[in-house]
Amino acid sequence: MTQRNKGILTVVSGFSGAGKGTIMKELMKKYSEQYALSVSATTRAPRCGETDGVEYFFKSREEFEQMIADEALIEYAQYVGNYYGTPKAYVEEQLNAGKDVILEIEIQGALKVKKRFPDTLLLFVTPPSADELKKRLIGRGTETMDVIESRLARALEEAEGIEEYDYLVNNDVLDECVEEVHELIQNEHYRVSRNIEAINTMRDELKGFKR
Amino acid sequence: MTQRNKGILTVVSGFSGAGKGTIMKELMKKYSEQYALSVSATTRAPRCGETDGVEYFFKSREEFEQMIADEALIEYAQYVGNYYGTPKAYVEEQLNAGKDVILEIEIQGALKVKKRFPDTLLLFVTPPSADELKKRLIGRGTETMDVIESRLARALEEAEGIEEYDYLVNNDVLDECVEEVHELIQNEHYRVSRNIEAINTMRDELKGFKR
Repeated sequence: MTQRNKGILTVVSGFSGAGKGTIMKELMKKYSEQYALSVSATTRAPRCGETDGVEYFFKSREEFEQMIADEALIEYAQYVGNYYGTPKAYVEEQLNAGKDVILEIEIQGALKVKKRFPDTLLLFVTPPSADELKKRLIGRGTETMDVIESRLARALEEAEGIEEYDYLVNNDVLDECVEEVHELIQNEHYRVSRNIEAINTMRDELKGFKR
Repeated sequence: MTQRNKGILTVVSGFSGAGKGTIMKELMKKYSEQYALSVSATTRAPRCGETDGVEYFFKSREEFEQMIADEALIEYAQYVGNYYGTPKAYVEEQLNAGKDVILEIEIQGALKVKKRFPDTLLLFVTPPSADELKKRLIGRGTETMDVIESRLARALEEAEGIEEYDYLVNNDVLDECVEEVHELIQNEHYRVSRNIEAINTMRDELKGFKR
């Protein structure tokens, strides 16, 4: 009796180097009909090869601040002097069309989204082990001790708030990881709290039938 | 970084005729290594062909009441003059051995289990539609109006408390339904709240590495 109506809003976060970008790319390729990837807005300048509306929506500072004033962003933050944020209109449009929408943002932004949309699914991508994470953070042994320390500090920061997340996704074998993310999101459609309407309809039909 | 240590406790409930028994049987057959099906204790007499420890643990009234006094049952209830309950020891043993344990009990019992073990996963099995449920409840047109009415009343009762459940499982095609139940339970192993220890270990390792 489950109904497929509205899409599921999912935030994917995780440690740098955990492979979030690759997972998302594969998911979109494999199940393009089902998902929509949210594109962030930013005030930073486009880099070589970046296209407006693909990697980011590139905005002037004035345009971005107008979006803030208009409450046109689900969440936003400043990072190294630039604004980054998630435009609301696109997300709502896609959800209403039944697409599952994915935002790839860090924990602080994720928790803001969750506060505004409490039925957001929060996934956190990790490498298979602490050792593997260390290896990826250290790189090929060419990094200075300063760089290593700042990456380790960042990894610890990136895990701040992880307890608020719903699921950990282990990125060991990419294909399996993509399937796992797909399953976790698709299973959300069967959550009782997302099917209250269908349940009440069934109850009414059973009652109506009795008379 | 997810760890597989303790098993997941799952309660499966659902409408009469939704096919819970068949789903459980198939699940046990297909993934016998992973699951343990809890066997209830009862004071009702064994029926022809039933074996103690298979369908039920058959107990005298005195034995059952001793189990209640010893808090040896996770939940129990009386039904048509007999006791039915879930022995605690077997469930805990299997969970500690890393098996995912399934209880097939009705909603009232399920909610008692959830209260005692808050991380219990609650699944509710339904037929694909209200119409299909009606058909199954009415049977082949040979039932009296009284029987039909009492079945409909029972279906409504069976759905009382369904909002407390985690997921609805649609029993349309049996094989798909069995896979769905398997996925829902296995995904629980990745829930953040079940991996706090692994997360803290990773944090400690990252911190330790920094010094």
